[in-house]
Amino acid sequence: MTCIMSKGTVVLAYSGGLDTSCILVWLKEQGYNVIAYLANIGQDEDFEAARKKAESLGAKKVFIEDLRSQFVEDFIWPAVQANAVYEDRYPLGTAVARPCIAHRQVEIARREGAQFVSHGATGKGNDQIRFELTCYALYPEVKIIAPWRIPEFYNRFRGRTDLMEYAQKHGIPVPVTPRAPWSMDANLMHISYESGILENPKSHAPADLYLMTKNPEDSPNEPDVLEIEFKNGVPVRVTNVKESTSKDTPLDIFSYLNEIGGKHGVGRIDIVENRFIGMKSRGIYETPGGTVLLKAHLDIETFTMDKEVRRIKQGLGIRFSELVYNGFWDSPECDFLSVFKGQVYILGRESSKSLYNEELVSMDVQGDYDPCDASGFIRINAVRLREHHRLQGFSGTKK
Amino acid sequence: MTCIMSKGTVVLAYSGGLDTSCILVWLKEQGYNVIAYLANIGQDEDFEAARKKAESLGAKKVFIEDLRSQFVEDFIWPAVQANAVYEDRYPLGTAVARPCIAHRQVEIARREGAQFVSHGATGKGNDQIRFELTCYALYPEVKIIAPWRIPEFYNRFRGRTDLMEYAQKHGIPVPVTPRAPWSMDANLMHISYESGILENPKSHAPADLYLMTKNPEDSPNEPDVLEIEFKNGVPVRVTNVKESTSKDTPLDIFSYLNEIGGKHGVGRIDIVENRFIGMKSRGIYETPGGTVLLKAHLDIETFTMDKEVRRIKQGLGIRFSELVYNGFWDSPECDFLSVFKGQVYILGRESSKSLYNEELVSMDVQGDYDPCDASGFIRINAVRLREHHRLQGFSGTKK
Amino acid sequence: MTCIMSKGTVVLAYSGGLDTSCILVWLKEQGYNVIAYLANIGQDEDFEAARKKAESLGAKKVFIEDLRSQFVEDFIWPAVQANAVYEDRYPLGTAVARPCIAHRQVEIARREGAQFVSHGATGKGNDQIRFELTCYALYPEVKIIAPWRIPEFYNRFRGRTDLMEYAQKHGIPVPVTPRAPWSMDANLMHISYESGILENPKSHAPADLYLMTKNPEDSPNEPDVLEIEFKNGVPVRVTNVKESTSKDTPLDIFSYLNEIGGKHGVGRIDIVENRFIGMKSRGIYETPGGTVLLKAHLDIETFTMDKEVRRIKQGLGIRFSELVYNGFWDSPECDFLSVFKGQVYILGRESSKSLYNEELVSMDVQGDYDPCDASGFIRINAVRLREHHRLQGFSGTKK
Amino acid sequence: MTCIMSKGTVVLAYSGGLDTSCILVWLKEQGYNVIAYLANIGQDEDFEAARKKAESLGAKKVFIEDLRSQFVEDFIWPAVQANAVYEDRYPLGTAVARPCIAHRQVEIARREGAQFVSHGATGKGNDQIRFELTCYALYPEVKIIAPWRIPEFYNRFRGRTDLMEYAQKHGIPVPVTPRAPWSMDANLMHISYESGILENPKSHAPADLYLMTKNPEDSPNEPDVLEIEFKNGVPVRVTNVKESTSKDTPLDIFSYLNEIGGKHGVGRIDIVENRFIGMKSRGIYETPGGTVLLKAHLDIETFTMDKEVRRIKQGLGIRFSELVYNGFWDSPECDFLSVFKGQVYILGRESSKSLYNEELVSMDVQGDYDPCDASGFIRINAVRLREHHRLQGFSGTKK
Repeated sequence: MTCIMSKGTVVLAYSGGLDTSCILVWLKEQGYNVIAYLANIGQDEDFEAARKKAESLGAKKVFIEDLRSQFVEDFIWPAVQANAVYEDRYPLGTAVARPCIAHRQVEIARREGAQFVSHGATGKGNDQIRFELTCYALYPEVKIIAPWRIPEFYNRFRGRTDLMEYAQKHGIPVPVTPRAPWSMDANLMHISYESGILENPKSHAPADLYLMTKNPEDSPNEPDVLEIEFKNGVPVRVTNVKESTSKDTPLDIFSYLNEIGGKHGVGRIDIVENRFIGMKSRGIYETPGGTVLLKAHLDIETFTMDKEVRRIKQGLGIRFSELVYNGFWDSPECDFLSVFKGQVYILGRESSKSLYNEELVSMDVQGDYDPCDASGFIRINAVRLREHHRLQGFSGTKK
Repeated sequence: MTCIMSKGTVVLAYSGGLDTSCILVWLKEQGYNVIAYLANIGQDEDFEAARKKAESLGAKKVFIEDLRSQFVEDFIWPAVQANAVYEDRYPLGTAVARPCIAHRQVEIARREGAQFVSHGATGKGNDQIRFELTCYALYPEVKIIAPWRIPEFYNRFRGRTDLMEYAQKHGIPVPVTPRAPWSMDANLMHISYESGILENPKSHAPADLYLMTKNPEDSPNEPDVLEIEFKNGVPVRVTNVKESTSKDTPLDIFSYLNEIGGKHGVGRIDIVENRFIGMKSRGIYETPGGTVLLKAHLDIETFTMDKEVRRIKQGLGIRFSELVYNGFWDSPECDFLSVFKGQVYILGRESSKSLYNEELVSMDVQGDYDPCDASGFIRINAVRLREHHRLQGFSGTKK
Repeated sequence: MTCIMSKGTVVLAYSGGLDTSCILVWLKEQGYNVIAYLANIGQDEDFEAARKKAESLGAKKVFIEDLRSQFVEDFIWPAVQANAVYEDRYPLGTAVARPCIAHRQVEIARREGAQFVSHGATGKGNDQIRFELTCYALYPEVKIIAPWRIPEFYNRFRGRTDLMEYAQKHGIPVPVTPRAPWSMDANLMHISYESGILENPKSHAPADLYLMTKNPEDSPNEPDVLEIEFKNGVPVRVTNVKESTSKDTPLDIFSYLNEIGGKHGVGRIDIVENRFIGMKSRGIYETPGGTVLLKAHLDIETFTMDKEVRRIKQGLGIRFSELVYNGFWDSPECDFLSVFKGQVYILGRESSKSLYNEELVSMDVQGDYDPCDASGFIRINAVRLREHHRLQGFSGTKK
Repeated sequence: MTCIMSKGTVVLAYSGGLDTSCILVWLKEQGYNVIAYLANIGQDEDFEAARKKAESLGAKKVFIEDLRSQFVEDFIWPAVQANAVYEDRYPLGTAVARPCIAHRQVEIARREGAQFVSHGATGKGNDQIRFELTCYALYPEVKIIAPWRIPEFYNRFRGRTDLMEYAQKHGIPVPVTPRAPWSMDANLMHISYESGILENPKSHAPADLYLMTKNPEDSPNEPDVLEIEFKNGVPVRVTNVKESTSKDTPLDIFSYLNEIGGKHGVGRIDIVENRFIGMKSRGIYETPGGTVLLKAHLDIETFTMDKEVRRIKQGLGIRFSELVYNGFWDSPECDFLSVFKGQVYILGRESSKSLYNEELVSMDVQGDYDPCDASGFIRINAVRLREHHRLQGFSGTKK
């Protein structure tokens, strides 16, 4: 009689797909008790089928967790408040999802007494870092099993063929439809596409790749007009003016903005970005609702916020975006930067008036503004310039 | 017999319109010799008519200067290199034009021995500052006459009616077409619209306001495909792939991008912005070519530039944009920041390869990258986080 | 009988010296009711004599206000929390005093129904801006009378002789001791010296100029050892270890640090600085207690604060210092930046342990740290560098 | 007969001490040909004895390289130009030395056809990173052997006793004098002390620890007066005014400043700092000449440089310091930041005059400055503040 001692319990972030199914079985082979955990953050998935699959593969327990509302409120909303955009273009749809998933994973691991967590993220990407930094932060003594960084694993599974073979051998149902020649990651906020034929930055994305947004060429010519009401920097209601539809819970608001944004082909980008790990990679993203909110929030912010406060917040927002991209959502510095985000809206909160003063700015009304003051303002600002150029001598062209 | 001594010579930035025509005559009344100077920076204007008008009003000399190429090469190109955008949205079309105009104005003033320069910018706006800081910088001992800040002037001309009356009395031809209920400023890079009915930020811009861009609803459904070749951060050739059209001088390239961008309704924004003077104002801008170039340059930059260099440049670019918006084009700090713009492209200049390494990033090829390294990378990055959260105790939600 | 209508009531920031005494009388001459207000912020002054002098010159009311505790708690302490230093060297002793004085001045003006405030700051300095921005911020409809910027005033008083003459004519007691050939401004935090013979940056300060600090050459050879206890970033107790003296109110703590710092010649600087107004000026400062606290606070901060939080706070602190120097103490952006200062110390507040972990850092104990991780960390950090230099070719020297 | 194939050639950064002597022998044991390389960067060492020792231990070749001048010119001077200071206090004496050593090490490795480099830096420190990032940057295909991160090595040598034992067994001369209870690293720029009894941040440094600087208590009461002449941001001559001594090569200048600074106890700091690796550590440093130059350069810079340029440079200097501390001396971002350093001094280079204008700043001379302008300047700066506070209502105290 052989007595196999369990090495302990591992909570695996399970997707239902081929990779993490193989990992589930492989972890069992290595002697772990496996708890499969599948977060519903808005991706298109048959969650009950995934539950059964995990159970049939030998998961000790399976947790399917609906995190959609929490994802919007605790992760997307702070990104909206911060105008979070990485490298001027990418609205961080994957980067904010990872800590959301890892939060619940750590909760389950602690509750179930699991010493290990595991995930199927690759060894060259950002997601491994995002998952793990959150896990280490919230559960400092956790041990992490990242199979795609373990030589015994990645040397055994050198390509999809190896995974397919292993699946067949271990009774793992294999996908019947042919796989798209790229990888895809979907959640409420966006779908990202990368690798495969997309790795070559010169190759264009095929027209049928996009799932969340209509091709702008095919989108309706008549605009939808949306009114978005903000409070403390996050939307509290969206109204479609023509249709008199209106939504007022975070999840409904965001889902509706996805629908309308998607219908008009809003929020597609095709970029090269710099991974934390130091390499450049090409990604294609569609973020319809997030893009609408980013533009709307920038607008409301400039309108209601003091100029210099906005300037400081802009710099902090860029820093915040880098940190989130790099996986530092649960870091002291992100907590620190978060303080500012709520703070800023005190301005608007106490008053329904914005800082915009139509009389002050009007060209026709003089109001409480003396144009002569501008002469002094300019001449004082010029004191330094005149000194500088007097020393330099005249030079009409910037070299 | 009365002998009127001239107070000296003033070079007036003349537009041909009602305001600066009145200013021209008023300056003469005050005892100045007036040189009218009209810069062609791409606005739609009958320059010969303007010349005759200025002469007929008593200008001692009239200079009509075609600055279009210089405007593109010395002012728009540096803005493209810097990804210059003010407050995340405004591509600075007016702000880069003002120093361009003032450079030549100062040259004329020095050449003609004029001690004074004058302009028709209002006392609440940014343009007065942009004109004057450049003038003070390049001609420190110049005296500036800004009628809209001189009580005797602005108290006399309290509205358009006063100007019309004065014009009729002094033989200044008055416009026959009714004026648009907003003011407009046009150049090669953009048209801006503000004041009048636009002052109320809630009032929508009328559909017929836009002159450079087609309404997106009416723009063609078939895209144009452009190839833009960059060298040292500026475009050196643009090719319309389908039509095999190609342009290769700065002015031609930029004009062509305006045409194609405009045809597709690219580059309209309707924003509230913070003036240097401390007030918020509403502006509507259309910047077709500039918007195309901004996106294209961001793309080429992320693709070719080291990640950390780009990060530093991004912060400097924001600073540069603020400075340009505020009128500090000819300042030591703008000169200082300009150094980095050329510098950065050395990377790309020496090699036709980008930093993008398809093998390195590929999910299928291991190349010269050991996935195990990522474990150490992550764990070292987590040292601090684990310490922090160990001290803080577990807390699953960002407050 | 002549009936002189009062132009209104003005609250004058009165120092008791020749300048503001002349201003007091001059304001009366102009038809104002004058309220003299003298803030005690720790300068060496005979306040009762000043009160009598102001009364004898015709002040309608005289307010002598002891603001020393408030100055320490509400103005110096926030500067300590922020490590406030302007241009890497100047600890802002004058800059934090001005808003403190102006706060009470505005309170008095509002309470007494005065529409005007006035001060004796010169037209080329920073103090005029600091006073006035705070006044405008806290009392937006106030009118400010700055005699040194009013031609009728400054053309009449072109030098000290004119002031002396005017004083004699109007019964203003004139100083009997000869004036130092520089001007001086003293408060609890520092004494500053400038102008006169100090204007030439090459001329050394005479040895007898310094009043708060001993010449280091003459200071005692035996050190005093101080223990300073901080809470939320501000000192709550200072103990002189050898003498067992201990102080625990803000005013006592700061005064004691001045005494001990001064005894050891701590905190003298002789610098050229850039005024907000755009010119360079030479100033000599002695800030004994402030310098001790700056060093101590930097130390406690690095010891207790997360590295990345500290980094962000460092940048914000520099911004805060510039704002305070320029007179924006009462601005939305300074309020915004203030949020971070309290926030940061939550870290230390909840725990008496610092982030310092002796076992973790020890060279002899391995603890919870695996040295192999560093290999991965380094190699991942090098991914980018190797790519870069591979493209550039080998080059051994930084050009 | 046993035939041992060499694994290849390794260039070992050899110090002559116990650790790297053991490493040398251990590397031979592992089958490498070892080239010993000892850089003279100003530490107190018997280099010829070290050469013999290395030879006797079996080094195939030994290179003793005098890098002192290069260290000053190519590494210390750029740090001076940048005002490089890490975390507001540490002038980076070790951090600039490491890339200097690694540059030559890579040159030797390339010249000698060695595929490997090795060093004796520990696995928890910054130096391993600094060495290796430079090596990877300049020699991307190099293999690095870091014994203190290799389990077979560090598990064998768990403490000094193990090293001593190994030394005795392999004929490595062991030190006869008892070792100080801390570790020390010396070069021309500074001596650093850490670990051992210093690990506890509460334990004071013993008085006899310091080797480069006199105890301030014992230093002479009479000051030395030095005149330092700068050109392009680096010193070109230092003169001791009283003694008429003068030095004018970089190495002589820096050595002399060390001597005089050390004599007066200048440049001691005892701090806790944040390592790149994420932990806090305590270090004691003495940097006499570097501290003198830092102060002098800050002074000359504020005096000669435009205010806003200085502001931008200040932020870049902080970034540069972090990068250098973290080991990124040979990175594209450091190269990029270096551009600015040279650039800045163009201002001063073309003119022997500074931007300081005594007439402009004088309180007695009005010069080309109209005090009335300041009123407008202030009121325009207040536009925003008044608006803000009007909306907020009056509030006299910063919360």
